[in-house]
Parts: sequence; C-alpha cells; structure tokens
Amino acid sequence: MAEHGMNGFVLGVDVGGTKVAAGLVDRQGKIHVQTRTPMAAVGDPAAGLRAVTSAIDLVSRRSPSEQPQGTIRAIGICCPGPLDPIAGRVINPPNLPCWRDYPLAAEVADIYHLPVKLDNDANAAALAEARWGAGRGSKNVFYATIGTGIGTGIVLEGKLYHGRTGAAGEGGHLSIDYRGPRCGCGKAGCIEAYASGPALARRTRERLASGRASKLLPLAKWRIEAVTSEMLGEAYGAGDRLAAEILEETVELLCAWLGNLVDLLDPDVIIMGGGVAVMLQPFLGKIRQQLPQWAINSRSREIPLVMAHYGADAGIAGGAALCSDVIE
Amino acid sequence: MAEHGMNGFVLGVDVGGTKVAAGLVDRQGKIHVQTRTPMAAVGDPAAGLRAVTSAIDLVSRRSPSEQPQGTIRAIGICCPGPLDPIAGRVINPPNLPCWRDYPLAAEVADIYHLPVKLDNDANAAALAEARWGAGRGSKNVFYATIGTGIGTGIVLEGKLYHGRTGAAGEGGHLSIDYRGPRCGCGKAGCIEAYASGPALARRTRERLASGRASKLLPLAKWRIEAVTSEMLGEAYGAGDRLAAEILEETVELLCAWLGNLVDLLDPDVIIMGGGVAVMLQPFLGKIRQQLPQWAINSRSREIPLVMAHYGADAGIAGGAALCSDVIE
Repeated sequence: MAEHGMNGFVLGVDVGGTKVAAGLVDRQGKIHVQTRTPMAAVGDPAAGLRAVTSAIDLVSRRSPSEQPQGTIRAIGICCPGPLDPIAGRVINPPNLPCWRDYPLAAEVADIYHLPVKLDNDANAAALAEARWGAGRGSKNVFYATIGTGIGTGIVLEGKLYHGRTGAAGEGGHLSIDYRGPRCGCGKAGCIEAYASGPALARRTRERLASGRASKLLPLAKWRIEAVTSEMLGEAYGAGDRLAAEILEETVELLCAWLGNLVDLLDPDVIIMGGGVAVMLQPFLGKIRQQLPQWAINSRSREIPLVMAHYGADAGIAGGAALCSDVIE
Repeated sequence: MAEHGMNGFVLGVDVGGTKVAAGLVDRQGKIHVQTRTPMAAVGDPAAGLRAVTSAIDLVSRRSPSEQPQGTIRAIGICCPGPLDPIAGRVINPPNLPCWRDYPLAAEVADIYHLPVKLDNDANAAALAEARWGAGRGSKNVFYATIGTGIGTGIVLEGKLYHGRTGAAGEGGHLSIDYRGPRCGCGKAGCIEAYASGPALARRTRERLASGRASKLLPLAKWRIEAVTSEMLGEAYGAGDRLAAEILEETVELLCAWLGNLVDLLDPDVIIMGGGVAVMLQPFLGKIRQQLPQWAINSRSREIPLVMAHYGADAGIAGGAALCSDVIE
C-alpha cells in the first residue's frame, strides 16, 4: 500500500506559443482542476517564466472547495521543441522566442522547491497515453499527433525513449520520399510535408488550381488560397469527390509511413491524436486494412491502431505524466 | 571477482544456406577456435539439425592442445529470418527450406543441456558489435550490414530491441520512396531496393542499357547482365565515371535513410558492415558530411559512423553475443 503522502497530485503544465494551461493530475491520470493563462511569448525570459508561474499559482492555489485533497509532489512541463529534456533546457523553439537556451526546469524548481521535468509536447503526450490513456498496459507505444505539424513520441518499456541527446522520436520527419516535397524542417518528403493540416491544404489547393471542381470551392468562398484542412472533413462529409480523393491518398501515405515504423519498432500499439487524426477517423478501418501491405512484419495486422484518449488536455496530462512516477 | 566457472566460453553458431560456422568466444569477444561444415539446407529438419550439431561437436571436441581452457556455458545461434527470437523458433527462411516453424533452440538445448539462444544474423551481429566491437561502450547502437540484402539491428541500453513479436529492427525495409522500385519483400522503395549489392548492380545495368560508356563493360566482358556490384568498386578504383556516379548516388540514398534513423533513434553510434559497406569505405567521409542535411537532429554530426569490427566472423561473434551474459 502507498503511504498517505503518496496519494498526491502532479501538476502538468502545457506551454504554447499563445497560452499556458496547467492542471492537477492524479495517479490515474485524471485531470482535476485546470486553468489557462496567456503566454508572454515575446519579451524577455523572465516574462515567459512569469506566465508559467502564474498558471501554476492559479491551479495550485484555488479555493479549498475547488481543490482536490492531496499534495502537489512534482511539476511536469511540456512545450514546443527543440529542447533538451535531459538537462531541462528550452533550446530555441520558433514559437517561444522569449527563451533561448533557457533552463526552464531549474528555474521552476527553484521557485517551488519541487522536482520539475521538461519535455516536448509529443513526447509528453505519448507518455500520458502510454501510462493512462489509449496505450495503458502496453510496454512499447508509438504515438503521433497530426495537426499543424506531426509530432511523435516513442515509449519503450514504459519509459520515453530519448536517444543520445533527447532528440529521438521525431517520426514526423521520417521521409517517405527522398525526392518529395520540401518540409519546413529542410528535409524532403517528410510525412509532415504530406499529411499535416497545412500539407493537406496545400495538396488540395494544388488540385483545385489545376481546375478540379469541388464542393470545397463554395466552402472557401471561391478563394482557393482560403482552403483549409478542416474544410476537407466538411466537404468529405458532404460527399465531395476531391476531398475523398485527398483523404484516401493521405491514408496511403500514412500507411507507407506507419509501415516503416512498424518494421523498425514493432510496437504494441499505435496511437493517433490531433485534429487531422480526428478528421481521418472514418478512414481508420482503411488504414488498418492497408497497413500490412506497407510492412514486412507478418503480424502487423495484430497491432492495434487507436485514437488518443486525451484531446485538448493532452498537454496537461503529458506534463503530468513526465513526473507521474513520484505518485505511483 | 568472477568465480572460476564464470571464465568460460560461449559457443557461437552461424547457420547459413550452404554452411554452418561455429566458434568458441570468450568474454572479451575474441574467437578462439572455429570450424565450418556444409549445411544440409535441403532435406528434413533432422538433417538440418545434424549439420548444426556436427559444427558444434567439431568446435567443442577439438584436441586438448587446440582447445582453450574453460567450459562452454551456453550456445548462441544466428540464422536467416524470419524467426522468432523469443520462442527460439525458425519460422520459414527462404534459404533454409529444411525448417518450417522449427524449435531449433529447444532441440539444441535438449542435446547439449545448455542454455541456447536464437536470433537473426543482423540482430546477432549488432549485439556483437555493441558488446565487443565498434560499438563497445555505447548504450544505443544502430547496426547495418549491407550486402546481398540490408540487415539491421537495434541495440538499446545494451540489449537487442525486439519489439512486440521479435520482428523489430528491420531497417533495411524502411522505404525512402513510397513510389520507388519494388523490393524483394513486396514493399516499394526500401533502402534494400536501392543500396544492396543486387540493387547496385541493377541500377548500374539500367544505366549501361541506356548506352552509357563505362570501364564496367570490359570488366563484364561486354555482357551488361553480367555486371555485379563488386565490379563497381573495381571500376571506381580505375577512375570510371559511371561507377563513381552510381556510388555517389548511393551515398545520397544512404544519407536519406540514415537521416530517418537518426531522427527516430538518435543512436550513440552507427555501425556499417558487409561487402557493400566495405566497397563504400572511400565514401565514409562524404556520408558523414552529407548526413546532417538529411536529419533534423541538430547534433547528428556528432554521431560516429564507423565500420564494423567483425567481418566474415560476424555470425560466430553474433551467435556468441546472444548469450554472452552468462560469462560476464
């Protein structure tokens, strides 16, 4: 039995370019109270730190009636990379210009006298899914969040796999075509350059520009440049041929990518989250069906391909998961 | 200090389509005595087993003068896949038609009353390199043997990474072009379909068939279909333009592939072995130089890219490495 003090909470913090969210998370991964404050993305490092501490203060000093019983035992922070999870330093995220090689974990630990862990969004969310979410009970988990970018995290034997410098698990930048479209990262043919939200929109606009008819045109008020990936889901729902074509091609591209991951990692489960993954949910059966053609692993069809448990709260749960071992 | 009995040997067995090699290996990974016998690749399972046991008997019952001091404490066998390293079963290797879902490890253990481990060639060689060879002292190792095929193995925290079913680490079948040339495995654009020996020969023959002049033509006695990958090295050494072109393209293809592996695994070291890797040795500097363009990992240039320590003996060392923990 755990002693009394073990039944505490961990505080998960999700730092984004425009907001900081924080929440108290229990040992079952349940988020009890949470808050959201604006992020001082521009400005000096201290301003960025103040945004983080005000979210922490808000969520940890709520009125006693709102506060769940138990002590806060650690703080886990996730934020956009690149960062060094081992040293707890933010390196130079484009979306967080306030920090450049900044020891965020140490600064927060100094203020609250608590253990503090730091990792990137996708790694943190992968760990939350492995520990408490759609991967609960699995040893080896591959997690992907498909949205504005494609972030991935690898959990092996229940622990985040970081590699030599903490830069492992960048599956969104696995190239499936070395001569493919240029990715924002500089590489060619990364799956992010095919299947992220902006990439879906780009592929759709290219097709429209070549003169294809589509329900997407009225949706975008006949301005091709205004077409977004979200509209694809809507147009597909309304029976649009072009939208179906783009999404079906995306299924094939994702299968080529996931097949590579299966052949390398043979995971216990593949978990997909993020806005594009939600939009692709009607195609999940198709991905499961086609994946074996893209993997030499003869038992790939046994690997569950499931939707993430945490949605918008993935960052809070992820931050908390980074230090969940202290309340186990 | 290890007790007397700990200073023993492990017996490594390398089962191939036409021969079985076996050797005694000490705790430093040194191969002391070794032997080689023909493999009864065709015929019944018992004939295959007899070929293995005769190699084991030959190497373990040498005359006392030849025999190193110490006891054989375990037997490790590597053979072509697919196989199940967890259950110790050979599944259905095309090159070993004598065995179909055959419990090789259990059969050998029954005969010698010793612990027996089984794994595929590339995994076993990866472990030998990590433990005793070019990756000694590294925690996370990516190993590739580039020859008739491309076999790879992943060692994490000093142990082989097997994944859910033992089918992980098939890096040779990572596709770098989902619309690329068909691989023997059925997938498209696997690095094996670009950079294995037969793939190099195919790419060269295509260029020759389109009318390119080359020193390869006299080497192959003007029969394009007789061009082999080995001739490429020879022609390159003699200053042939086409050979240089093919090998330089191969550098780029390997960089695209290794960049993916670096972004996913961020290993401590990358080790390359096999005939094609040896032929590409003059290009090792170029690969090191170009790899950072194919990885988003900002510290990829720090990752050592080195040649394998074990050459033709990789199978014996690999087999031994599978059970080297018993003599540690």
